[in-house]
Amino acid sequence: MEKHSVIEASGHKFRTNNISSRVQKIVISPIKEMSILADEFMEKTGNDVISFGQGIPHFDTPEYIKEGIITALKEISTAKYTLEPGMTELRELIAEFLKSSRNIKNIDAKKEIMVTAGCQEAVACSIATVIDEGDEVLLFSPDYASHIEQIIQFGGVPIFVSLEEKNGWILKIKEINQKITDRTKAIIFSNPSNPTGAVLTEKEINEIAGVAKKHNLIIIADETYDFLLYDGKKHLSPSSLEDIRDRVILCGSFSKKYALTGYRVGYAFSDSGIIDHMLKVHDAIAICAPAISQKAAISALSGSQDSVVNFVEKLTSNRELMCKKLDEMKNLFEYQKPFGAYYILVKYKIPEIDSLNLALKILYEAHVITIPGIAFGPTGEGHIRFSFACHPKEIEEGFKRLKKWADNL
Amino acid sequence: MEKHSVIEASGHKFRTNNISSRVQKIVISPIKEMSILADEFMEKTGNDVISFGQGIPHFDTPEYIKEGIITALKEISTAKYTLEPGMTELRELIAEFLKSSRNIKNIDAKKEIMVTAGCQEAVACSIATVIDEGDEVLLFSPDYASHIEQIIQFGGVPIFVSLEEKNGWILKIKEINQKITDRTKAIIFSNPSNPTGAVLTEKEINEIAGVAKKHNLIIIADETYDFLLYDGKKHLSPSSLEDIRDRVILCGSFSKKYALTGYRVGYAFSDSGIIDHMLKVHDAIAICAPAISQKAAISALSGSQDSVVNFVEKLTSNRELMCKKLDEMKNLFEYQKPFGAYYILVKYKIPEIDSLNLALKILYEAHVITIPGIAFGPTGEGHIRFSFACHPKEIEEGFKRLKKWADNL
Repeated sequence: MEKHSVIEASGHKFRTNNISSRVQKIVISPIKEMSILADEFMEKTGNDVISFGQGIPHFDTPEYIKEGIITALKEISTAKYTLEPGMTELRELIAEFLKSSRNIKNIDAKKEIMVTAGCQEAVACSIATVIDEGDEVLLFSPDYASHIEQIIQFGGVPIFVSLEEKNGWILKIKEINQKITDRTKAIIFSNPSNPTGAVLTEKEINEIAGVAKKHNLIIIADETYDFLLYDGKKHLSPSSLEDIRDRVILCGSFSKKYALTGYRVGYAFSDSGIIDHMLKVHDAIAICAPAISQKAAISALSGSQDSVVNFVEKLTSNRELMCKKLDEMKNLFEYQKPFGAYYILVKYKIPEIDSLNLALKILYEAHVITIPGIAFGPTGEGHIRFSFACHPKEIEEGFKRLKKWADNL
Repeated sequence: MEKHSVIEASGHKFRTNNISSRVQKIVISPIKEMSILADEFMEKTGNDVISFGQGIPHFDTPEYIKEGIITALKEISTAKYTLEPGMTELRELIAEFLKSSRNIKNIDAKKEIMVTAGCQEAVACSIATVIDEGDEVLLFSPDYASHIEQIIQFGGVPIFVSLEEKNGWILKIKEINQKITDRTKAIIFSNPSNPTGAVLTEKEINEIAGVAKKHNLIIIADETYDFLLYDGKKHLSPSSLEDIRDRVILCGSFSKKYALTGYRVGYAFSDSGIIDHMLKVHDAIAICAPAISQKAAISALSGSQDSVVNFVEKLTSNRELMCKKLDEMKNLFEYQKPFGAYYILVKYKIPEIDSLNLALKILYEAHVITIPGIAFGPTGEGHIRFSFACHPKEIEEGFKRLKKWADNL
């Protein structure tokens, strides 16, 4: 696929001498490029910017977790590397959580779970573990931007399976089957989906499982938004299917559920034979997940889950608000209402501008951050992603700016 | 090189189906394997274990840094992802530190510095940025174990340049020149050295610089132990040499200097053209360094450096103690006295046992963790590494056990 760097689109030239061709092929995910460019823009112009960009909840970390951190600071173990696979207590809590939420009978916390420096690192370790140079990984288009970069980074080839936007970004199992070759090693997806908010149905999960079994593929399921569903939708994980459990890597997160994005703590759950190898990659890139963040995660899982209920309520209300605002700009925008996560991938009706340049234009002219759809795969072109994790006041203000900007188009 | 996994030597079989050949070639660094095996051993037998293994200072994080963390918890920004390259304030503090400690005139904190999830991640990003599949990286043998795994992990080939043990692990520049091919892309080393404690002289640094310039190589300098030198030795960084600065990546750490190993925060300093690319890898594996750890690093650099002086004094005294204890076991052990870091790479006079099996034997029979020398490259065979970062009481107790064990050999 073509490179899709906002920074390059804005005119930046990259060094080529001494740089690997592999890294020359990847970009900083436009999700973060937009934050970097916005930071530069604010510094240069003194303007403020409203962010519908990177998916950061506007909530602060709940008090009970902060209290856990302050207690942890009194323990000398917080200063030190933890065991490389993570604190035993945390792995046990994760095992309990997965058993109850995924309906899994037995989990060996010490052998099947590893704690990582965020879900991002869990996915990176997964990919590194299952592909060699030139191997292919299937991913949905659109799907989370970094999955693309992670595959290329480790020498793999991302093979896009396009989703059908009409009726809510539906999976086309036929296309999956068509794209499998003898180099295909894995299939990766976020579910609920970043950036579309689509939620895989039981039928879709079963279809993916069937393909994986037939073709000896690994399923990498990024379940960061497992807790965040709307309209009564249910989260289903391929790791719940007993007969494919040894070929599923579930990558999980504490970031969004507990407002811990800055803490960089997540986990992977898989067959012990896979975790064995993933731990080697984890060691080479991180040594261990941050101890203080592991303690935060222990507090998060041990305490009352009321804050999660509260977050979900607020985000549900944000979703309604943003949909309403988008509906008011029907002449420019259309979208599929999300059933999970906190993003809307919006199709724009502005002719002759690609999503990279539109996102830049909106930043510089309207002072609002959005993410260019091309970041999420070729099917994302013609779209921009909006996050509604921000404060409702920011949604109000951001759309005020967008409307004013649209009036001058 | 042959695989050098303690876990495999102890009888563990690894899964091969669905696993990349690249990852099958690497190991969890025996530094952490030994901790994992010791943890299992303690749980199984109820024995306690003295660790001369992983290099973790026995000090707690200094109080002024903890206070900074508690203050940071009151700011909502601590909950959130930071800017992908790191907090601006921290990058500026690192720039100031490097300017004064490395005698560098100008540093662009925003373009030449990135904050990472530990020095380990900085090195991983460096290697990923400069090598493609099959490229060669020169490294000293012995050198820090993870550098080997990091090279192989990203598809590279580690090419070992053996050091001369006699007279203190001396660099043989002639051997470097002999090992350069048209696939050589970089040279990597830790200085002061983990595991030997050797400190590169000005002449050695200049020789390496000359080779790098002549053959268009990148120098990756892991300067984790820059603060920890003995007997009046001085730390010299290749990044101080103006004419090669655009080909040096300096990887730095807060872990040992401020007793922050568990926090996973470090940095890289290089030419902006290189940092540009390293940021892409950083995004794909970590998103950003932990915010709370970045705040800890800000506190660490802003406050009084008295705690560092205190740490160095204590470690200097530990060095004397451990050398004395080793001298008392002359019949079994000999070593080069380290001039930096907190390790001694000890040559053992026990026939017919390789270092993997000796480290296992010492763990299971003497209940002391040491690290097998083979972890550090082929020249490390016949040696085991001792860390003297632990409490002096642990050094006393560990050697009491070793002597008793030796008596029964």
